[in-house]
Amino acid sequence: MVSTTFDVYDTTLRDGAQQEGMNLSVADKLAIAPLLDELGVGFIEGGWPGAIPKDTEFFKRAGKELDLKHAQLAAFGATRKAGSRVHDDVQVRALLDSEAPVVTLVAKHDIRHVERALRTTGEENLAMIAESVAFLVGEGRRVIVDAEHFFDGYRYDPDYAVRAVVAGFEAGAECVCLCDTNGGMLPEWVHQIVTAVGDRVDGRLGMHAHNDTGCAVANTLAAVSAGAVHVQGTVNGYGERTGNADLLTVVANLELKEGRRLLADSGLREVTRIAHAISEVTNIAPFARQPYVGASAFAHKAGLHASAIKVDPDLYQHTDPRAVGNDMRMLVSDMAGRASIELKGRELGFDLAGRGELLTRVTNRVKDAEAQGYTYDAADASFELLLREELDGERLAFFRAESWRVIVETAAGDPTDARAEGTVKLHVGGRRVLSTGEGNGPVNALDHALREALLPTYPEVERFELIDFKVRLLDTQHGTDAVTRVLVETMDTGAETTWSTVGVGPNVVEASWEALVDAIVYGLLHAGVENRS
Amino acid sequence: MVSTTFDVYDTTLRDGAQQEGMNLSVADKLAIAPLLDELGVGFIEGGWPGAIPKDTEFFKRAGKELDLKHAQLAAFGATRKAGSRVHDDVQVRALLDSEAPVVTLVAKHDIRHVERALRTTGEENLAMIAESVAFLVGEGRRVIVDAEHFFDGYRYDPDYAVRAVVAGFEAGAECVCLCDTNGGMLPEWVHQIVTAVGDRVDGRLGMHAHNDTGCAVANTLAAVSAGAVHVQGTVNGYGERTGNADLLTVVANLELKEGRRLLADSGLREVTRIAHAISEVTNIAPFARQPYVGASAFAHKAGLHASAIKVDPDLYQHTDPRAVGNDMRMLVSDMAGRASIELKGRELGFDLAGRGELLTRVTNRVKDAEAQGYTYDAADASFELLLREELDGERLAFFRAESWRVIVETAAGDPTDARAEGTVKLHVGGRRVLSTGEGNGPVNALDHALREALLPTYPEVERFELIDFKVRLLDTQHGTDAVTRVLVETMDTGAETTWSTVGVGPNVVEASWEALVDAIVYGLLHAGVENRS
Repeated sequence: MVSTTFDVYDTTLRDGAQQEGMNLSVADKLAIAPLLDELGVGFIEGGWPGAIPKDTEFFKRAGKELDLKHAQLAAFGATRKAGSRVHDDVQVRALLDSEAPVVTLVAKHDIRHVERALRTTGEENLAMIAESVAFLVGEGRRVIVDAEHFFDGYRYDPDYAVRAVVAGFEAGAECVCLCDTNGGMLPEWVHQIVTAVGDRVDGRLGMHAHNDTGCAVANTLAAVSAGAVHVQGTVNGYGERTGNADLLTVVANLELKEGRRLLADSGLREVTRIAHAISEVTNIAPFARQPYVGASAFAHKAGLHASAIKVDPDLYQHTDPRAVGNDMRMLVSDMAGRASIELKGRELGFDLAGRGELLTRVTNRVKDAEAQGYTYDAADASFELLLREELDGERLAFFRAESWRVIVETAAGDPTDARAEGTVKLHVGGRRVLSTGEGNGPVNALDHALREALLPTYPEVERFELIDFKVRLLDTQHGTDAVTRVLVETMDTGAETTWSTVGVGPNVVEASWEALVDAIVYGLLHAGVENRS
Repeated sequence: MVSTTFDVYDTTLRDGAQQEGMNLSVADKLAIAPLLDELGVGFIEGGWPGAIPKDTEFFKRAGKELDLKHAQLAAFGATRKAGSRVHDDVQVRALLDSEAPVVTLVAKHDIRHVERALRTTGEENLAMIAESVAFLVGEGRRVIVDAEHFFDGYRYDPDYAVRAVVAGFEAGAECVCLCDTNGGMLPEWVHQIVTAVGDRVDGRLGMHAHNDTGCAVANTLAAVSAGAVHVQGTVNGYGERTGNADLLTVVANLELKEGRRLLADSGLREVTRIAHAISEVTNIAPFARQPYVGASAFAHKAGLHASAIKVDPDLYQHTDPRAVGNDMRMLVSDMAGRASIELKGRELGFDLAGRGELLTRVTNRVKDAEAQGYTYDAADASFELLLREELDGERLAFFRAESWRVIVETAAGDPTDARAEGTVKLHVGGRRVLSTGEGNGPVNALDHALREALLPTYPEVERFELIDFKVRLLDTQHGTDAVTRVLVETMDTGAETTWSTVGVGPNVVEASWEALVDAIVYGLLHAGVENRS
């Protein structure tokens, strides 16, 4: 028997990845899955192994590389082909081969789709559902059925739609998730239909909503109110067209408004941080007005109510922002800002309790920096260097840069083949050093030149490897004149630790330089290297 | 008597303007109001004259400069101060002076806010409502009451909240709009409360929702279902915190899903254009996933369904996109098959039906390119150039580049202050041209150099403006050695059209070069410029 009483099922990596402009690599998926696990969801749908080569690869690597605490991985796939045997179906076989403990089978529940898109009969489709579910259950998998186009199908032919649901349950599916695939439903309709289906079948029903009427969250709640015990959605509401139900909003509503407890380990308190961390991986700018986790979600334009809000904040906010790890931003950072700086300091090993003046100084510096485009959510190392600077009264420096230059140049006659050369001039080990490095691109060349200059004095930099590099343009109204933010992730291959730094500047090279310098300073510091500047 | 049976009340210019980062000038408001009128709303709330000088000015100029066909202007303001006479209240007087035919009075309906924020008694608050409404009605104004914090207030003390509603109606308010000011309601709660209030009062009720639970649209629909006949909201859901109910989505749902007719002159067919035009004025980038009007709202990515969509589009969309002036778009993605390439071609104006060999060739090229890191679902213009190349047998070229070079260099002694210089060598107009441009960064400098070189031959490039620039590193395991993808969005400021191109390369400059070249070629092509290479 299934022990969970309510399922939170995340499909960011599969249905979320259908969003226009989103293109998740295997590495991206492997980076997002642990964040979802940390959030405390019950299921992580990883993709469609067999149909999409990248997804086959994801499941192969996930088995070796991921260590999930709460979530089970689900492989998404289709029922067997019409007119074939399930044992011979290559696509169904690939689901088994993925070794995911859960398989979610998408199955047609709208007779029009069966006849017009699948071009088969209603009876054959029912057999496809029953045989595919039974086969996978027989192989020891937990099976969920995604009842595709269920609501449109039910409105057109309720009996057929319900027969398809029953076919799934009778074959051993632990849950049938009713999908509003086209996203056109309204909450009252969902409530009526889920209630009616619940009256006719015996089994756990779920809800998968899209936001085409702006009601994905409400439709999910309506289904839960009508008896659904399994909710699907995506982080930040990513997904095709208008997106899927934002799982974060759904869960926050169910936990905070209806008093349910759905996420493992009080994950809701981490939801703002996790939402933003995932948006760094997807490289899709966070939506400031996103409920609960958006930068503006608890931001009050001061004005008339300012004093009243200070006295009695609960009169002016629908829930305590701390419950979702967000801040009420109108309180000029005094409480919330300093409190989170103090917490972050503690996380990094600095006890800042009672150091009010220092906290104010750091909080103000962070706010100024964030106004310029810096972000410390994903750059703990840069934050630590900032904090140490305020603690020590000066910036930690293992060397002093004088200037740098980068040339990117194509071969004559071939404008599609460029090479880069970087030169840095700096003072280190008591000497002035000039050094040149080559690379595919400007940042790479500059990185090589910088390491080259430092190596004689700090041989430890040989161990540092730049493993990730993200670029985002802010204030994109200005095109290439916009401010550029670069996040760099570096690994100490000796200690197997990684750290992230941030740089901001009018161009990608300047921003990268700042992040590269921070990365090396932080690395030397944590490698216990003495200052030989 | 009021002739309208259902009110669509827009508060973009007042409550929408509370959004973080939004700062509407009087000219902005005067530009937005006619667009709202064109949409066909019944009321345009222009601001708070008397309290906000800009809004006083807006009403003064609106009376002279605006020629509204459908909408009536509403001035927003508060009831008289506690312990004063309404005739002497400066703020109430300013509402009259605005000469707006409609006045919307915000009034406290939560006894806690009366006592703790207003610091007066419940009885005095009721008198403030009654006297303020009666005074303005006596002066010939239509009066609407915005029942602030109504839902929270009702849950705490239903009798007081209802007494306040009754006070407004008895004094002559034509509508009392129940406000979920803190935005914490869920649809079922709204439905219950509006139903209960409707049973106790006699008058037109309205709904004003905020999106803090992601349910603003659904809460508005729930109120309508419970008897509300007046809906408030903002274009694009602008507003404080998570925003107001998106009036466009509310109205589209009520018209298309529930068969009501709310907007004058079939305004719904213009809603996509108007939503985008307003976002140009507010200078807030449109949200691609916005229901009905978003750029992605009818964009399909799944390659699997493409063949079925071709046959039967209604099976795959919840409503006809033309009903809201939007288009169905096919996204060319790594799941692309020949069917989606054919559909995409049709969308771009190429009939590829029956051209099997060509479709196979294009599909294979797209797949190869996507394996290298290209993505066409956000770069239609690059896809069109690829398609034309396969159709014509050669790549369209308005010039031939020979080489380029970029130097990014800091001032001596200040490694945080860099400038870039780009040089291109190319053949155009029968000549070999060398040209140099400067910029904040390498791409900017190269863009300037390229335009400089082309201008004498193609003066049209002066009109092209780079308006957005996105950088993504792929396969980030390799750090700065990774492949870089650049998406560039360009606008023809003469034709007011925009297009997107993609470039991929081992570094950001090389990838940008490719996207910049494609952008210019596409722009010249669509500007009808003859090849003068």
